[in-house]
Amino acid sequence: MSNVTLGAAEEIIEAAHRRAREIGKAVSVAVVDSGGFVVAVRRADGARPLTPDIARAKAYTAAVMQRPGTMLKKWQESQPVFFSQLSQLPGAAMPILATEGSVTIKKDGEIIGGLGIAGGTADEDQVIADEVLASLGYELEFAAWGVAGSPAPSGKD
Amino acid sequence: MSNVTLGAAEEIIEAAHRRAREIGKAVSVAVVDSGGFVVAVRRADGARPLTPDIARAKAYTAAVMQRPGTMLKKWQESQPVFFSQLSQLPGAAMPILATEGSVTIKKDGEIIGGLGIAGGTADEDQVIADEVLASLGYELEFAAWGVAGSPAPSGKD
Amino acid sequence: MSNVTLGAAEEIIEAAHRRAREIGKAVSVAVVDSGGFVVAVRRADGARPLTPDIARAKAYTAAVMQRPGTMLKKWQESQPVFFSQLSQLPGAAMPILATEGSVTIKKDGEIIGGLGIAGGTADEDQVIADEVLASLGYELEFAAWGVAGSPAPSGKD
Amino acid sequence: MSNVTLGAAEEIIEAAHRRAREIGKAVSVAVVDSGGFVVAVRRADGARPLTPDIARAKAYTAAVMQRPGTMLKKWQESQPVFFSQLSQLPGAAMPILATEGSVTIKKDGEIIGGLGIAGGTADEDQVIADEVLASLGYELEFAAWGVAGSPAPSGKD
Repeated sequence: MSNVTLGAAEEIIEAAHRRAREIGKAVSVAVVDSGGFVVAVRRADGARPLTPDIARAKAYTAAVMQRPGTMLKKWQESQPVFFSQLSQLPGAAMPILATEGSVTIKKDGEIIGGLGIAGGTADEDQVIADEVLASLGYELEFAAWGVAGSPAPSGKD
Repeated sequence: MSNVTLGAAEEIIEAAHRRAREIGKAVSVAVVDSGGFVVAVRRADGARPLTPDIARAKAYTAAVMQRPGTMLKKWQESQPVFFSQLSQLPGAAMPILATEGSVTIKKDGEIIGGLGIAGGTADEDQVIADEVLASLGYELEFAAWGVAGSPAPSGKD
Repeated sequence: MSNVTLGAAEEIIEAAHRRAREIGKAVSVAVVDSGGFVVAVRRADGARPLTPDIARAKAYTAAVMQRPGTMLKKWQESQPVFFSQLSQLPGAAMPILATEGSVTIKKDGEIIGGLGIAGGTADEDQVIADEVLASLGYELEFAAWGVAGSPAPSGKD
Repeated sequence: MSNVTLGAAEEIIEAAHRRAREIGKAVSVAVVDSGGFVVAVRRADGARPLTPDIARAKAYTAAVMQRPGTMLKKWQESQPVFFSQLSQLPGAAMPILATEGSVTIKKDGEIIGGLGIAGGTADEDQVIADEVLASLGYELEFAAWGVAGSPAPSGKD
């Protein structure tokens, strides 16, 4: 399993901060590796104190659940109790935050980390994440799960 | 109280992995004893990082609640807050995950452990668990509880 | 970063169980990937209920600290308070158990996981782990840290 | 209360990473504000998975305890139990890690944040932190506490 490098993480974070400034928002951005461990985190001046941790939990979720928060959110809505208990699993280091602004980092078909953005509206966090990853050549397509309520990858994934 | 042996657990896990491969899925499978303690866990290559813990929590739930997840799920739907608090009881070692792919292991009328499967769709997890336990001669019938929301077993259980 | 496969994990666990039986001990054995997530766990019949979790925490420690427990133990002895607090870090999913029977899995100079053994004496757990990994061609040499009390790899590590 | 800006934090982190590379070490560096909240964290390629969290806990400690880890360490040695309980206070967000590589960021007599470095030897972590802060014009003098074991600041602090 490959992992996002610090150089790649910094490039993503800088692009995300630039994009956020263009729309007048102060955001925190976190990038973690494929096991959910921190590679880099940055809080823009003016972003709220807990936003770096929210961004990190979003990045962690996208990395270890191997799907973007917007896909996980549908699963969460169909099984809220199950989902809230995921965060209490012995192997879970961080709350599983299935929401906007949480995107899996994928290159050449391989999951190499997670990106989390917090501080804008839900839509802004999501748009920034998607635009930045697309502009840097990362892949944004993920195999759908068979049915809502269950995280099984379809096909060869 | 009898408990599932390691040999029996391995036999169950191998059959479950074989069944999952036949439908093209990479799953994690866990078997716990009647007290909810791990006997064996295996994650197929390609299954997500937290699936072994999800499978384990499903196995734990089926063992210590002494009913399959599909029966518990109905209870959970009628009392979601109560249910989410079960996991915080001092004696609860693990989140109580009442869902598909969580089946109590019963032989000769005695509960000897729990089986958890994660990584397929909800239906796939359930079908694999049921088929494997049936094919190996375990019993899949459990006495219903008297009323939803209350776990008092009816009948001789 | 490569990760130990399920096939390789099973091979390690079987060899460890065989070795333990030869000395008349019932042990639990866990193998985790390089991010500390479970690949496989097995408890021999007769091993105590919490041994699979102890084995797992030992495997987790060896994987994410990237050094065997016997090396970490020296660090822990020089800084007990610091070490006990490591387990409370936001990114730590599991207690950091720096002790015997906790060995980093390394192949071709790369860290691909962790092995944990629990249920024998400290020495037995350690000997089994070392013998099994050596017999299967894994590397048991790790660069020393500069000084006790600090985990810095020396040289190019 | 003033706080270290993102620009200042990045400048510190870059200088620390440069200094670490000169001695051949891969370190993680964290900067937090005066309330202990993350401003920026970076893990160099090759630094162990938990080092960003260790660096952050060191930075947190130096910020909220308002003294460098090397001063706190003496207090900790005289009262280890008390100190380990500090981390469990309701207001403590993070383990209090009193050790080398944990330095309070102070400018114009005011505490504006904390710097944490992890991944080198204890001495290396400390030297890098001190050199970087000195070279960037931060103040490294802190009033001693009245007595060991009691954190009452002496003098005007």
